[in-house]
Amino acid sequence: MKVLIIGAAGMIGRKLTDAILRDQVIGDRRVEALHLADVIAPVPPASDSVKITTSTTDLTDPAAARALTVWRPEVIFHLAAVVSGQAETDLDLGLTVNLDGTRNILDAIRQTGEGYCPRFVFTSSLAVFGTPLPDVIPDDFAPNPRTSYGAQKLIGEILVSDFSRRGLLDGISLRLPTICIRPGAPNAAASGFFSGILREPLAGLPAALPVDPETRHWFAGPRGAVGLLLHAASVDTAPLGHRRALNLPGISATVADQIAALERVAGPRAVALIRPEPDPLVRDIVSAWPRAFAPDRALSMGFTAETSFDEIIAAHIEDELGGSLPLHDVP
Amino acid sequence: MKVLIIGAAGMIGRKLTDAILRDQVIGDRRVEALHLADVIAPVPPASDSVKITTSTTDLTDPAAARALTVWRPEVIFHLAAVVSGQAETDLDLGLTVNLDGTRNILDAIRQTGEGYCPRFVFTSSLAVFGTPLPDVIPDDFAPNPRTSYGAQKLIGEILVSDFSRRGLLDGISLRLPTICIRPGAPNAAASGFFSGILREPLAGLPAALPVDPETRHWFAGPRGAVGLLLHAASVDTAPLGHRRALNLPGISATVADQIAALERVAGPRAVALIRPEPDPLVRDIVSAWPRAFAPDRALSMGFTAETSFDEIIAAHIEDELGGSLPLHDVP
Repeated sequence: MKVLIIGAAGMIGRKLTDAILRDQVIGDRRVEALHLADVIAPVPPASDSVKITTSTTDLTDPAAARALTVWRPEVIFHLAAVVSGQAETDLDLGLTVNLDGTRNILDAIRQTGEGYCPRFVFTSSLAVFGTPLPDVIPDDFAPNPRTSYGAQKLIGEILVSDFSRRGLLDGISLRLPTICIRPGAPNAAASGFFSGILREPLAGLPAALPVDPETRHWFAGPRGAVGLLLHAASVDTAPLGHRRALNLPGISATVADQIAALERVAGPRAVALIRPEPDPLVRDIVSAWPRAFAPDRALSMGFTAETSFDEIIAAHIEDELGGSLPLHDVP
Repeated sequence: MKVLIIGAAGMIGRKLTDAILRDQVIGDRRVEALHLADVIAPVPPASDSVKITTSTTDLTDPAAARALTVWRPEVIFHLAAVVSGQAETDLDLGLTVNLDGTRNILDAIRQTGEGYCPRFVFTSSLAVFGTPLPDVIPDDFAPNPRTSYGAQKLIGEILVSDFSRRGLLDGISLRLPTICIRPGAPNAAASGFFSGILREPLAGLPAALPVDPETRHWFAGPRGAVGLLLHAASVDTAPLGHRRALNLPGISATVADQIAALERVAGPRAVALIRPEPDPLVRDIVSAWPRAFAPDRALSMGFTAETSFDEIIAAHIEDELGGSLPLHDVP
């Protein structure tokens, strides 16, 4: 079958591409062709068995969106988005990319016609939720975004559900947990420290901790996130009915839990690289975020992610650090 | 102050206009000028004290939306919408009017600039909710529309909340109960019989009942709906925070409750005009609708509506039938 990834040049897009090329199947269907689209030119990996094409595509142009669906891919992953901080700083940019861009690809699908009804996997976010929140969020708890990013993702979810109910596509919206450990350089995102306090010490580098160790949040690793996306691409969507957005399994962990896992895997010298640097602004932002979910619907449909930070850290060492810790001894 | 009603030619728009001209104040502020806009030319009532202007405005044109906000009204009621059945039959029309039209007026407000931040009262609907539903819906229960109309209204709510959070306007979205008794001729809406079984017998005419008498739903009368809109135009919005959409007070009543009230007010001869005509299609549609709410937030902010169908029927006789029943005896 033919698979399209929109937003293929991002971190999750690249890891999803690698996983598809490694498995060469999604569910029980062989992937024959993969098209990678992004506003930044995607770099196609080598593959003997899967035909790979790429395009530099600006989804805010309706014609560009239509050019992607003319190919009639059976599975579409829509990962492209302006991220949280940027959507908050620039409302017009967020609305144009996150709302209009998503609507453009949805409209392109329904305008393709001739019974075209692809599986459409939309990456939403736990940013659709805002305070007040219960300690554990049930599936029927009302989203109330506190950011424009969360609002725009929620609008995308509603369109995906409505278009699916109308039989125009077969959509599923994934409220992905916060991805941790994000590889790469530290960034300025308020959530960045959750990755930084593991990634940097694992590389022998210092890391700042801006919040209290008892701060709790909801996480999946990059492998877990890719697994959720691939499962969404092949799972039977009948149990979803018209409610196409899913809270997802993840790990509810405190910063102290993260640090304990780091110590188990990389020893006290790694933990000693974490410096408390309280930041009231980051603390206030993070305190408004979900702490845990009871994702019963997703669990009943077979969605799974990592179950411990030990597992996430081990995967990071394997995937990003060549399988060993560079600068310090494992205990 | 200056007040704008968009969708002024509709039933609620006309009753809201009449109430504003009668009271000449909203909250404790005098209404000096009222602009009535609709895609159908509004007919301005006479008024000695309030300056009334009208326009034939198609909100799907961004320039037309901007023309309304140049006037800088302090209060905007946005009632304009393609109704449920039409939005389901014609997805493009619903998206264009209900989503793009709403966004156009929101964008026009934020583009007005110079600190312009009007109270924006948006009429949403209990159609944002879809099954499975609890018997009584709490304020934090997740909306899951089962119609494109409900989806488009929910998207409007999210934009109103996000723009309000950003300080671009001071918005409030009202999930109005089903309005009953709707005056006028019977229509083909699935909900039409809820009004028909009261309105037609009160006028001495027969009415069909397509559902079981135990069918339960959530109602407000036209007076109640107008009262909710006027309260929303002046209430302190601080308690809303970033959650600008409100479930509202109403009456949870069965069809049997409605008929009992009809009998109390208009006697058994009126009730005898109701003919059971079971319609499985209408029964299925209505069975998916909300049966009751616990609208704690709205109640704590002083929102009120009718409390009995006796009250609704009495108001209908006063407002629509000249104060007396034409064709049969009161018991």
